[in-house]
Amino acid sequence: MKIGIIGTGAYSVGIAFVLSNNKDNKITMWSENEELVKDFKKTKKLNKIVEGKTIPKNISITNSMEDTLNDAEVVFLLTSINYVEDVCKNIKSIISPKVPICIGTKGIYDKRFAYQIVAKNLKNPLTIISGPTFASDLINMAPVGFTLAGKNKKSALKVKNVLSFSNIKIETSKDMLGISINGCLKNIYAIGSGIIKGLGYNESTLGLYLTQSYQELANILCKYNSTMETLNSLSGLGDLIATCSSTNSRNYTLGSLIGKKTSSKEVTKYIENNTVEGYTILEVMSKMLKKKHVKTPLLNTIYNIVKNNENPQKLINEITKKAS
Amino acid sequence: MKIGIIGTGAYSVGIAFVLSNNKDNKITMWSENEELVKDFKKTKKLNKIVEGKTIPKNISITNSMEDTLNDAEVVFLLTSINYVEDVCKNIKSIISPKVPICIGTKGIYDKRFAYQIVAKNLKNPLTIISGPTFASDLINMAPVGFTLAGKNKKSALKVKNVLSFSNIKIETSKDMLGISINGCLKNIYAIGSGIIKGLGYNESTLGLYLTQSYQELANILCKYNSTMETLNSLSGLGDLIATCSSTNSRNYTLGSLIGKKTSSKEVTKYIENNTVEGYTILEVMSKMLKKKHVKTPLLNTIYNIVKNNENPQKLINEITKKAS
Repeated sequence: MKIGIIGTGAYSVGIAFVLSNNKDNKITMWSENEELVKDFKKTKKLNKIVEGKTIPKNISITNSMEDTLNDAEVVFLLTSINYVEDVCKNIKSIISPKVPICIGTKGIYDKRFAYQIVAKNLKNPLTIISGPTFASDLINMAPVGFTLAGKNKKSALKVKNVLSFSNIKIETSKDMLGISINGCLKNIYAIGSGIIKGLGYNESTLGLYLTQSYQELANILCKYNSTMETLNSLSGLGDLIATCSSTNSRNYTLGSLIGKKTSSKEVTKYIENNTVEGYTILEVMSKMLKKKHVKTPLLNTIYNIVKNNENPQKLINEITKKAS
Repeated sequence: MKIGIIGTGAYSVGIAFVLSNNKDNKITMWSENEELVKDFKKTKKLNKIVEGKTIPKNISITNSMEDTLNDAEVVFLLTSINYVEDVCKNIKSIISPKVPICIGTKGIYDKRFAYQIVAKNLKNPLTIISGPTFASDLINMAPVGFTLAGKNKKSALKVKNVLSFSNIKIETSKDMLGISINGCLKNIYAIGSGIIKGLGYNESTLGLYLTQSYQELANILCKYNSTMETLNSLSGLGDLIATCSSTNSRNYTLGSLIGKKTSSKEVTKYIENNTVEGYTILEVMSKMLKKKHVKTPLLNTIYNIVKNNENPQKLINEITKKAS
């Protein structure tokens, strides 16, 4: 089966590696970067994350959207959120409107989640994948699980079949909004985990913090009419635990720098040199939740520490606060 | 206030250190070990976990149960589960039946949880404390949280007040049974976490595993008429996350040895030389849950790997199993 992947970041490469395990698949990745495509053709170098690994023969890369989408039976959209609208406009005249698009892009842009931006621009049946799946684990074919959310049963089943490998667990959902919220908030809560670790605290304190993060996420999802199923899905509880305990993530690292009371100059430098998803969406998520009148004491505290230079100790005060 | 602590293990020392922060407290710890008490009087050495630390002046240790319990306004019972019945018989004629006993002992013995053994022997009002609180974190006064469960409001409030320090969050519950089940199962699931890590897998796989462990715990608690509150309490979700991610725990280490396919001789040696709580209770919890007709695929798989030398890979097969 021909499968198109829009994006060549670490996560795109992870998904491509997974799909490449079916030797009947022909995976075409799209990048706008001409150098990257030229280099790949010469050296087979694709992304730092697979340095030293052999790129499977059924993965190719191109700058041509036509080559990526023509005859593709499923398309994965995995670019950064800020490119999603442009990509949609570019592919509108190329993609057949019946081809299922599976979106792995997290985040929020112009007050819209990725699937909402795509739905505004294209008529294709949409699904979302989300769950505790770091690119490095996908590449190594580690046992992982996704929540696959979509309203169109037939196209969800098609994507599910494409991702059906023995090391992959897929659970399905119809709650695209709730799953998108999960995908954003885990990154913000991971900043909090980093703050706690940066302050010098360990598993006990993280256990206390994560229990409260989970409860706050529950309250938020409730306001958006999501069910317990969304909360306790792989994209919810599963990814919250994984992201908040992954000491390599950029969200965690940012929090950790702040917790260690690194100078704000150095913190700013880190933010400028790295895409810290939780940081990028902090402002807009914060505003969005305020409008919904949902109480988010942890998120507010993280916001004030990160954006207003408040003392990171305030997160500790918040999680140990006595009930009034 | 005079406070008695029955036990001198790491957790007892942790609780004693916390209580010692109120300089008006006089904490008397009981041990049956005469050498330990003699040594402490000479060298102030108490337990490996506080080696090098100064023992607060308001902590003392004795072999006399009378000295421990006389005038004590609250008693903490923190011995291993297999000593609880003996202790109860010993103190029956000494302890005033009005003194609240707060139990921190986890596990199951002769098909009974600690609070059930105590209730059978003594009329004192009982509470349980449970939550993500490693002894080392208690000693360092890290921010931590407990679930405090008890049916007698007045005595629960008394214990809550005794533990009321700025770094400690306490949530209350009436579900002593559910909280006791949480305290057992987290140790079994931590063996599973260790197995996964021993097999060489990382956060993504642990996120998948923990999401399913949580769901299995939910099903179990449901059969015992526990509510979501018990499941999502610090003693439930909080301690599940903390215990399963604490790479230093003996449960995790046992699992990790098995996951790495260490020889069964070495695994047996580890079990003989260390109290691995999850291992100790595996047989009895397994039988207990079977009688309740609750489906526990993860627990059964861990049981078969640990007790019947089945391939640790079976845990991976279980968590990635396709829905039938």
